[in-house]
Amino acid sequence: MATECGTERIAGCQFNLSVMSDDFVDVILGSLDAVDMSKVWRDTDDVTTCVRGRVEHVFDVVKAVYLHAAKTGKHVEMSGTFSIGCPGDSSGDTYMDASAERMNEPAVADIQQKAGCKFALYPMNTTSYMDVIYEQIDLSKARGVEVSPSHYSTRLDGEVNDIFGAIEEAFTKVQEVVSHTTTTFTISANSPSSKK
Amino acid sequence: MATECGTERIAGCQFNLSVMSDDFVDVILGSLDAVDMSKVWRDTDDVTTCVRGRVEHVFDVVKAVYLHAAKTGKHVEMSGTFSIGCPGDSSGDTYMDASAERMNEPAVADIQQKAGCKFALYPMNTTSYMDVIYEQIDLSKARGVEVSPSHYSTRLDGEVNDIFGAIEEAFTKVQEVVSHTTTTFTISANSPSSKK
Repeated sequence: MATECGTERIAGCQFNLSVMSDDFVDVILGSLDAVDMSKVWRDTDDVTTCVRGRVEHVFDVVKAVYLHAAKTGKHVEMSGTFSIGCPGDSSGDTYMDASAERMNEPAVADIQQKAGCKFALYPMNTTSYMDVIYEQIDLSKARGVEVSPSHYSTRLDGEVNDIFGAIEEAFTKVQEVVSHTTTTFTISANSPSSKK
Repeated sequence: MATECGTERIAGCQFNLSVMSDDFVDVILGSLDAVDMSKVWRDTDDVTTCVRGRVEHVFDVVKAVYLHAAKTGKHVEMSGTFSIGCPGDSSGDTYMDASAERMNEPAVADIQQKAGCKFALYPMNTTSYMDVIYEQIDLSKARGVEVSPSHYSTRLDGEVNDIFGAIEEAFTKVQEVVSHTTTTFTISANSPSSKK
Protein backbone atom coordinates (compact mmCIF):
# COMPACT_ATOMS: atom_id res chain seq x y z
CA MET A 1 0.00 0.00 0.00
CA ALA A 2 2.81 2.40 0.82
CA THR A 3 4.31 2.30 -2.64
CA GLU A 4 0.98 3.29 -4.21
CA CYS A 5 0.75 6.37 -2.04
CA GLY A 6 1.40 9.60 -3.89
CA THR A 7 1.21 11.71 -0.76
CA GLU A 8 3.99 10.13 1.25
CA ARG A 9 6.20 13.18 1.30
CA ILE A 10 3.42 15.47 2.48
CA ALA A 11 3.92 15.89 6.20
CA GLY A 12 1.46 17.37 8.62
CA CYS A 13 0.73 17.98 12.24
CA GLN A 14 -2.56 18.16 14.06
CA PHE A 15 -2.03 19.86 17.44
CA ASN A 16 -3.81 21.66 20.22
CA LEU A 17 -2.29 24.46 22.23
CA SER A 18 -3.52 24.86 25.80
CA VAL A 19 -2.88 27.92 27.91
CA MET A 20 -3.79 27.64 31.57
CA SER A 21 -4.99 31.19 32.18
CA ASP A 22 -8.12 33.30 31.85
CA ASP A 23 -6.67 35.14 28.84
CA PHE A 24 -6.01 31.94 26.91
CA VAL A 25 -7.77 33.23 23.81
CA ASP A 26 -5.40 36.18 23.49
CA VAL A 27 -2.32 34.04 24.06
CA ILE A 28 -3.37 31.34 21.60
CA LEU A 29 -4.45 33.70 18.86
CA GLY A 30 -1.41 35.88 19.50
CA SER A 31 0.90 32.91 19.10
CA LEU A 32 -0.78 31.75 15.91
CA ASP A 33 -0.62 35.28 14.50
CA ALA A 34 3.06 35.70 15.43
CA VAL A 35 4.07 32.72 13.32
CA ASP A 36 4.80 32.94 9.62
CA MET A 37 2.66 30.21 8.08
CA SER A 38 3.22 31.18 4.46
CA LYS A 39 4.84 27.84 3.65
CA VAL A 40 2.19 25.59 5.15
CA TRP A 41 -1.49 24.95 4.64
CA ARG A 42 -3.30 25.66 7.90
CA ASP A 43 -6.73 25.05 9.36
CA THR A 44 -7.88 25.81 12.90
CA ASP A 45 -11.15 24.64 14.44
CA ASP A 46 -12.41 24.39 18.02
CA VAL A 47 -10.43 21.22 18.76
CA THR A 48 -7.09 21.44 16.94
CA THR A 49 -4.96 23.24 14.40
CA CYS A 50 -3.69 21.31 11.40
CA VAL A 51 -0.68 22.39 9.36
CA ARG A 52 0.57 20.57 6.26
CA GLY A 53 3.54 20.92 3.97
CA ARG A 54 7.19 19.93 3.84
CA VAL A 55 8.54 18.26 6.98
CA GLU A 56 10.84 21.14 7.88
CA HIS A 57 8.11 23.74 7.60
CA VAL A 58 5.64 21.73 9.63
CA PHE A 59 8.16 21.43 12.47
CA ASP A 60 9.22 25.07 12.06
CA VAL A 61 5.65 26.28 12.48
CA VAL A 62 4.63 23.97 15.34
CA LYS A 63 7.73 24.78 17.37
CA ALA A 64 7.31 28.51 16.77
CA VAL A 65 3.66 28.46 17.87
CA TYR A 66 4.64 26.70 21.07
CA LEU A 67 7.58 28.99 21.84
CA HIS A 68 5.59 32.17 21.27
CA ALA A 69 2.98 30.93 23.75
CA ALA A 70 5.40 29.51 26.33
CA LYS A 71 7.60 32.60 26.44
CA THR A 72 4.71 34.44 28.10
CA GLY A 73 5.65 32.52 31.24
CA LYS A 74 2.20 30.99 31.53
CA HIS A 75 1.68 27.27 31.95
CA VAL A 76 1.40 26.16 28.32
CA GLU A 77 0.92 22.67 26.97
CA MET A 78 0.77 21.35 23.45
CA SER A 79 -0.22 17.89 22.29
CA GLY A 80 -0.10 16.79 18.72
CA THR A 81 0.59 14.20 16.09
CA PHE A 82 3.10 14.55 13.29
CA SER A 83 2.25 12.31 10.37
CA ILE A 84 3.58 11.47 6.95
CA GLY A 85 2.55 8.99 4.30
CA CYS A 86 -0.87 8.07 5.66
CA PRO A 87 -2.56 5.99 2.94
CA GLY A 88 -5.97 7.29 3.99
CA ASP A 89 -4.97 10.93 3.76
CA SER A 90 -5.92 13.21 0.91
CA SER A 91 -3.24 14.64 -1.35
CA GLY A 92 -4.50 18.20 -1.17
CA ASP A 93 -4.01 21.02 1.31
CA THR A 94 -0.24 21.30 0.92
CA TYR A 95 2.43 23.74 -0.12
CA MET A 96 5.01 21.27 -1.36
CA ASP A 97 6.69 23.66 -3.77
CA ALA A 98 7.95 25.93 -0.99
CA SER A 99 11.69 26.44 -0.69
CA ALA A 100 13.60 24.86 2.19
CA GLU A 101 14.32 28.05 4.14
CA ARG A 102 12.52 28.01 7.50
CA MET A 103 10.47 31.13 7.99
CA ASN A 104 10.37 31.16 11.80
CA GLU A 105 13.75 29.83 12.87
CA PRO A 106 15.45 33.25 13.07
CA ALA A 107 12.75 34.57 15.40
CA VAL A 108 12.68 31.61 17.80
CA ALA A 109 16.18 30.07 17.73
CA ASP A 110 17.36 32.18 20.67
CA ILE A 111 14.30 31.80 22.88
CA GLN A 112 15.35 30.07 26.08
CA GLN A 113 12.49 27.99 27.43
CA LYS A 114 12.73 24.78 29.43
CA ALA A 115 10.07 22.13 29.00
CA GLY A 116 9.24 18.51 29.57
CA CYS A 117 7.94 16.41 26.70
CA LYS A 118 6.70 12.88 26.20
CA PHE A 119 6.73 11.56 22.67
CA ALA A 120 6.13 8.26 20.93
CA LEU A 121 7.05 7.06 17.47
CA TYR A 122 4.65 4.86 15.51
CA PRO A 123 6.16 3.38 12.36
CA MET A 124 3.12 1.91 10.64
CA ASN A 125 2.68 -1.00 8.25
CA THR A 126 5.79 -2.83 9.40
CA THR A 127 6.56 -5.72 11.70
CA SER A 128 10.03 -4.40 12.64
CA TYR A 129 8.73 -1.23 14.26
CA MET A 130 10.31 -1.83 17.65
CA ASP A 131 13.79 -2.04 16.12
CA VAL A 132 13.21 1.28 14.38
CA ILE A 133 12.01 2.90 17.62
CA TYR A 134 15.03 1.72 19.60
CA GLU A 135 17.35 3.24 17.01
CA GLN A 136 15.70 6.62 17.43
CA ILE A 137 16.03 6.63 21.19
CA ASP A 138 19.80 6.50 20.75
CA LEU A 139 19.53 9.38 18.34
CA SER A 140 17.66 11.52 20.82
CA LYS A 141 20.43 11.11 23.36
CA ALA A 142 22.89 12.57 20.92
CA ARG A 143 21.00 15.84 20.74
CA GLY A 144 21.77 16.89 24.28
CA VAL A 145 18.30 16.57 25.75
CA GLU A 146 17.76 14.46 28.83
CA VAL A 147 16.08 11.22 27.82
CA SER A 148 14.17 8.95 30.18
CA PRO A 149 11.67 6.13 29.75
CA SER A 150 8.00 6.57 30.49
CA HIS A 151 4.99 4.34 30.02
CA TYR A 152 3.99 4.37 26.33
CA SER A 153 6.46 7.14 25.52
CA THR A 154 9.93 8.57 25.88
CA ARG A 155 10.43 11.64 28.01
CA LEU A 156 12.65 14.49 26.85
CA ASP A 157 13.68 17.35 29.13
CA GLY A 158 15.58 20.45 28.09
CA GLU A 159 15.22 23.51 25.92
CA VAL A 160 12.15 23.59 23.70
CA ASN A 161 14.35 24.16 20.65
CA ASP A 162 16.38 21.04 21.45
CA ILE A 163 13.30 18.94 22.23
CA PHE A 164 11.64 19.69 18.89
CA GLY A 165 15.01 19.22 17.19
CA ALA A 166 15.29 15.73 18.63
CA ILE A 167 11.72 14.82 17.67
CA GLU A 168 12.16 16.16 14.15
CA GLU A 169 15.38 14.21 13.70
CA ALA A 170 13.77 10.99 14.91
CA PHE A 171 10.68 11.52 12.77
CA THR A 172 12.73 12.41 9.70
CA LYS A 173 14.98 9.41 10.04
CA VAL A 174 12.14 6.94 10.57
CA GLN A 175 10.08 8.20 7.64
CA GLU A 176 13.05 7.58 5.35
CA VAL A 177 12.65 3.85 5.98
CA VAL A 178 8.96 3.59 6.95
CA SER A 179 6.58 5.27 4.53
CA HIS A 180 3.75 5.90 7.00
CA THR A 181 5.18 7.28 10.22
CA THR A 182 3.44 9.14 13.02
CA THR A 183 4.84 10.75 16.14
CA THR A 184 2.73 11.87 19.06
CA PHE A 185 3.93 14.37 21.63
CA THR A 186 2.83 16.30 24.70
CA ILE A 187 5.03 19.17 25.81
CA SER A 188 4.59 21.22 28.97
CA ALA A 189 6.33 24.37 30.20
CA ASN A 190 6.02 26.57 33.28
CA SER A 191 3.99 24.02 35.20
CA PRO A 192 3.67 24.81 38.90
CA SER A 193 4.52 21.15 39.51
CA SER A 194 7.58 21.24 37.28
CA LYS A 195 10.53 19.11 38.22
CA LYS A 196 12.99 21.92 37.57
CA MET B 1 6.77 -10.47 18.77
CA ALA B 2 3.13 -10.06 19.81
CA THR B 3 2.70 -13.66 20.89
CA GLU B 4 5.74 -13.43 23.16
CA CYS B 5 4.33 -10.46 24.99
CA GLY B 6 3.07 -11.24 28.46
CA THR B 7 1.66 -7.77 29.03
CA GLU B 8 -0.80 -7.62 26.17
CA ARG B 9 -3.92 -7.43 28.28
CA ILE B 10 -2.60 -4.61 30.44
CA ALA B 11 -4.13 -1.44 29.09
CA GLY B 12 -3.11 2.07 29.96
CA CYS B 13 -3.58 5.67 29.11
CA GLN B 14 -1.19 8.56 29.30
CA PHE B 15 -3.12 11.82 29.18
CA ASN B 16 -2.91 15.50 29.99
CA LEU B 17 -5.83 17.56 31.19
CA SER B 18 -5.77 21.26 30.30
CA VAL B 19 -8.03 23.83 31.89
CA MET B 20 -8.01 27.26 30.33
CA SER B 21 -8.42 29.37 33.45
CA ASP B 22 -6.34 30.94 36.19
CA ASP B 23 -7.58 28.38 38.72
CA PHE B 24 -6.49 25.43 36.59
CA VAL B 25 -4.63 23.82 39.50
CA ASP B 26 -7.77 23.60 41.60
CA VAL B 27 -9.86 22.24 38.73
CA ILE B 28 -7.29 19.65 37.69
CA LEU B 29 -6.54 18.42 41.20
CA GLY B 30 -10.24 18.54 42.07
CA SER B 31 -11.07 16.35 39.09
CA LEU B 32 -8.34 13.85 39.85
CA ASP B 33 -9.47 13.71 43.49
CA ALA B 34 -13.13 13.26 42.55
CA VAL B 35 -12.39 10.09 40.62
CA ASP B 36 -12.21 6.67 42.21
CA MET B 37 -8.87 5.27 41.04
CA SER B 38 -8.84 2.24 43.30
CA LYS B 39 -8.83 -0.16 40.34
CA VAL B 40 -5.99 1.42 38.39
CA TRP B 41 -2.34 2.17 38.98
CA ARG B 42 -1.82 5.90 38.64
CA ASP B 43 1.12 8.26 38.33
CA THR B 44 0.98 12.01 37.76
CA ASP B 45 3.94 14.20 36.89
CA ASP B 46 4.28 17.70 35.45
CA VAL B 47 3.51 16.58 31.89
CA THR B 48 0.92 13.81 32.03
CA THR B 49 -1.04 11.39 34.17
CA CYS B 50 -0.72 7.70 33.46
CA VAL B 51 -3.28 5.12 34.53
CA ARG B 52 -2.94 1.38 33.98
CA GLY B 53 -5.14 -1.61 34.53
CA ARG B 54 -7.97 -3.44 32.82
CA VAL B 55 -9.34 -1.77 29.69
CA GLU B 56 -12.71 -0.94 31.22
CA HIS B 57 -11.19 0.71 34.28
CA VAL B 58 -8.73 2.76 32.27
CA PHE B 59 -11.57 4.17 30.17
CA ASP B 60 -13.78 4.58 33.23
CA VAL B 61 -11.16 6.69 35.00
CA VAL B 62 -10.10 8.81 32.01
CA LYS B 63 -13.68 9.66 31.07
CA ALA B 64 -14.56 10.50 34.67
CA VAL B 65 -11.55 12.83 35.05
CA TYR B 66 -12.56 14.67 31.90
CA LEU B 67 -16.23 14.95 32.84
CA HIS B 68 -15.52 16.24 36.34
CA ALA B 69 -13.35 18.98 34.84
CA ALA B 70 -15.61 19.84 31.90
CA LYS B 71 -18.77 20.09 34.00
CA THR B 72 -17.30 23.23 35.60
CA GLY B 73 -18.19 24.97 32.33
CA LYS B 74 -14.60 26.03 31.76
CA HIS B 75 -12.85 25.39 28.47
CA VAL B 76 -11.26 22.01 29.13
CA GLU B 77 -9.18 19.89 26.79
CA MET B 78 -7.68 16.47 27.20
CA SER B 79 -5.20 14.72 24.95
CA GLY B 80 -3.99 11.22 25.49
CA THR B 81 -2.98 7.85 24.22
CA PHE B 82 -4.65 4.58 25.10
CA SER B 83 -2.32 1.65 24.62
CA ILE B 84 -2.33 -2.09 25.04
CA GLY B 85 0.20 -4.80 24.30
CA CYS B 86 3.24 -2.61 23.75
CA PRO B 87 6.21 -5.00 23.53
CA GLY B 88 8.50 -2.38 25.06
CA ASP B 89 6.33 -1.77 28.08
CA SER B 90 6.98 -3.17 31.51
CA SER B 91 4.60 -5.68 33.03
CA GLY B 92 4.30 -3.92 36.38
CA ASP B 93 2.20 -1.04 37.65
CA THR B 94 -1.17 -2.71 37.13
CA TYR B 95 -4.21 -3.85 39.04
CA MET B 96 -5.27 -6.68 36.78
CA ASP B 97 -7.05 -8.65 39.49
CA ALA B 98 -9.73 -5.97 39.92
CA SER B 99 -13.32 -6.97 39.32
CA ALA B 100 -15.15 -5.71 36.24
CA GLU B 101 -17.47 -3.26 38.00
CA ARG B 102 -16.70 0.31 36.95
CA MET B 103 -16.16 2.53 39.96
CA ASN B 104 -17.04 5.88 38.36
CA GLU B 105 -19.83 5.10 35.91
CA PRO B 106 -22.69 5.74 38.39
CA ALA B 107 -21.37 9.22 39.17
CA VAL B 108 -20.78 10.37 35.60
CA ALA B 109 -23.30 8.50 33.43
CA ASP B 110 -25.86 11.26 33.71
CA ILE B 111 -23.54 14.23 33.17
CA GLN B 112 -24.63 16.06 30.04
CA GLN B 113 -21.63 17.63 28.36
CA LYS B 114 -21.14 18.23 24.64
CA ALA B 115 -17.65 18.02 23.18
CA GLY B 116 -15.69 17.65 19.99
CA CYS B 117 -13.02 14.97 19.74
CA LYS B 118 -10.44 13.88 17.20
CA PHE B 119 -9.09 10.40 17.55
CA ALA B 120 -6.89 8.04 15.61
CA LEU B 121 -6.39 4.30 15.82
CA TYR B 122 -2.93 2.80 15.36
CA PRO B 123 -2.94 -0.98 15.06
CA MET B 124 0.79 -1.81 15.27
CA ASN B 125 2.85 -4.64 13.89
CA THR B 126 0.50 -5.41 11.03
CA THR B 127 0.33 -4.64 7.34
CA SER B 128 -3.49 -4.72 7.23
CA TYR B 129 -3.92 -1.81 9.61
CA MET B 130 -5.95 0.35 7.22
CA ASP B 131 -8.59 -2.35 6.85
CA VAL B 132 -8.90 -2.58 10.61
CA ILE B 133 -9.24 1.20 10.91
CA TYR B 134 -11.97 1.39 8.29
CA GLU B 135 -13.98 -1.25 10.12
CA GLN B 136 -13.88 0.81 13.31
CA ILE B 137 -15.11 3.97 11.61
CA ASP B 138 -18.33 2.12 10.79
CA LEU B 139 -18.57 1.07 14.40
CA SER B 140 -18.32 4.64 15.63
CA LYS B 141 -21.27 5.65 13.46
CA ALA B 142 -23.41 3.06 15.17
CA ARG B 143 -22.90 4.68 18.56
CA GLY B 144 -24.92 7.78 17.77
CA VAL B 145 -22.08 10.28 17.73
CA GLU B 146 -21.58 12.49 14.70
CA VAL B 147 -18.58 11.20 12.75
CA SER B 148 -16.61 13.24 10.24
CA PRO B 149 -13.20 12.89 8.59
CA SER B 150 -10.28 15.08 9.56
CA HIS B 151 -6.63 15.08 8.56
CA TYR B 152 -4.86 12.26 10.43
CA SER B 153 -7.88 11.53 12.56
CA THR B 154 -11.62 11.00 12.80
CA ARG B 155 -13.75 13.65 14.42
CA LEU B 156 -16.52 12.72 16.85
CA ASP B 157 -19.09 15.22 18.09
CA GLY B 158 -21.69 14.59 20.76
CA GLU B 159 -21.99 13.83 24.42
CA VAL B 160 -18.74 13.08 26.22
CA ASN B 161 -20.16 9.81 27.49
CA ASP B 162 -20.98 8.73 23.93
CA ILE B 163 -17.64 9.89 22.54
CA PHE B 164 -15.61 7.87 25.04
CA GLY B 165 -18.01 4.96 24.53
CA ALA B 166 -17.29 4.97 20.81
CA ILE B 167 -13.53 5.20 21.31
CA GLU B 168 -13.55 2.41 23.88
CA GLU B 169 -15.57 0.17 21.60
CA ALA B 170 -13.23 0.80 18.67
CA PHE B 171 -10.14 0.28 20.81
CA THR B 172 -11.53 -2.87 22.42
CA LYS B 173 -12.49 -4.40 19.09
CA VAL B 174 -9.16 -3.65 17.43
CA GLN B 175 -7.07 -5.01 20.30
CA GLU B 176 -8.90 -8.31 20.01
CA VAL B 177 -7.31 -8.82 16.59
CA VAL B 178 -4.15 -6.67 16.86
CA SER B 179 -2.06 -7.33 19.96
CA HIS B 180 -0.39 -3.91 20.14
CA THR B 181 -2.98 -1.21 19.59
CA THR B 182 -2.83 2.46 20.43
CA THR B 183 -5.47 5.17 20.14
CA THR B 184 -4.75 8.87 20.38
CA PHE B 185 -7.40 11.45 21.14
CA THR B 186 -7.93 15.14 21.77
CA ILE B 187 -11.25 16.20 23.24
CA SER B 188 -12.41 19.76 23.78
CA ALA B 189 -15.46 21.20 25.54
CA ASN B 190 -16.78 24.68 26.22
CA SER B 191 -14.49 26.30 23.68
CA PRO B 192 -15.41 29.89 22.85
CA SER B 193 -14.93 28.91 19.19
CA SER B 194 -17.14 25.86 19.48
CA LYS B 195 -19.21 24.83 16.50
CA LYS B 196 -22.29 24.29 18.65
